[in-house]
Amino acid sequence: MLPRTYEGQHCSIAGTLEVVGDRWTLLVIREAFRGTSRFDDFLARIGLARTVLTDRLNRLVDEQILERVRYQQRPDRYEYRLTQKGLDLFPVIVSLMAWGDRHVMGGQPPLVFHHRGCGGAVTDRRLCASCGQELGPRDVEPRPGPGAIQGGSSARLLPKS
Amino acid sequence: MLPRTYEGQHCSIAGTLEVVGDRWTLLVIREAFRGTSRFDDFLARIGLARTVLTDRLNRLVDEQILERVRYQQRPDRYEYRLTQKGLDLFPVIVSLMAWGDRHVMGGQPPLVFHHRGCGGAVTDRRLCASCGQELGPRDVEPRPGPGAIQGGSSARLLPKS
Repeated sequence: MLPRTYEGQHCSIAGTLEVVGDRWTLLVIREAFRGTSRFDDFLARIGLARTVLTDRLNRLVDEQILERVRYQQRPDRYEYRLTQKGLDLFPVIVSLMAWGDRHVMGGQPPLVFHHRGCGGAVTDRRLCASCGQELGPRDVEPRPGPGAIQGGSSARLLPKS
Repeated sequence: MLPRTYEGQHCSIAGTLEVVGDRWTLLVIREAFRGTSRFDDFLARIGLARTVLTDRLNRLVDEQILERVRYQQRPDRYEYRLTQKGLDLFPVIVSLMAWGDRHVMGGQPPLVFHHRGCGGAVTDRRLCASCGQELGPRDVEPRPGPGAIQGGSSARLLPKS
């Protein structure tokens, strides 16, 4: 494992990477943006070990990127929801996705975001290509793109509020 | 170490993380965007072990994110420059930095980007706040921000071409 701290680096990027800078953590955040909220769903959709998932979820709750909310009693069941601090990672997710669409998927995105309001495509600057609106994570919906695999896990929606 | 592959994940984000998804790799890329090109400068400015730096630079050259260019003969000396594929990571760097400015640095950015043309601030959508131009990595210059530390390493420029 790499160390989580970088001595003498007064840098916002290094600081961000201390919080979200491992791949499993970023994939957990990706799933949260796709609407996944329950432990077993994260487990199935990311395909990582239970202990690793527990560790990453706990760390994200500690960092106030996710909040743990009880959604059922007897027995108590909890789900994980993005906080505002977590939702603020939307630009990171969009920019990682845009680069991968171009340079890993050869321009065939498995998933594309559209503006919920007018259906316009979402640019890599998070603007609606159709109406020009500045878009946040609750303004967009994921749809299968030209590189989608038949039978792959379907795109879901982040709740509007 | 985490595995570098994610079975069954046909996802542009997972794909991107396979290439750039470790913190040292992203800090090497950050330095390249700040204009750093030589091995010893990466070493001094990131503060990581030589073997780790060598590994990350080699991997980034293999992935065609950096190219190794000879800048001196007798003795031969090489520097590392961002390719177009590497420059396309600019949105990732900007979005990581913007989140860290807000949530790690408490709104006191150590470094801010300005539009080279008119001096306007660069928004987190990579638009010039002053003239509205869409900005790429060669259109901006870093300047010390309100959170800069006196005596810290100075901001540098990415060459215009």
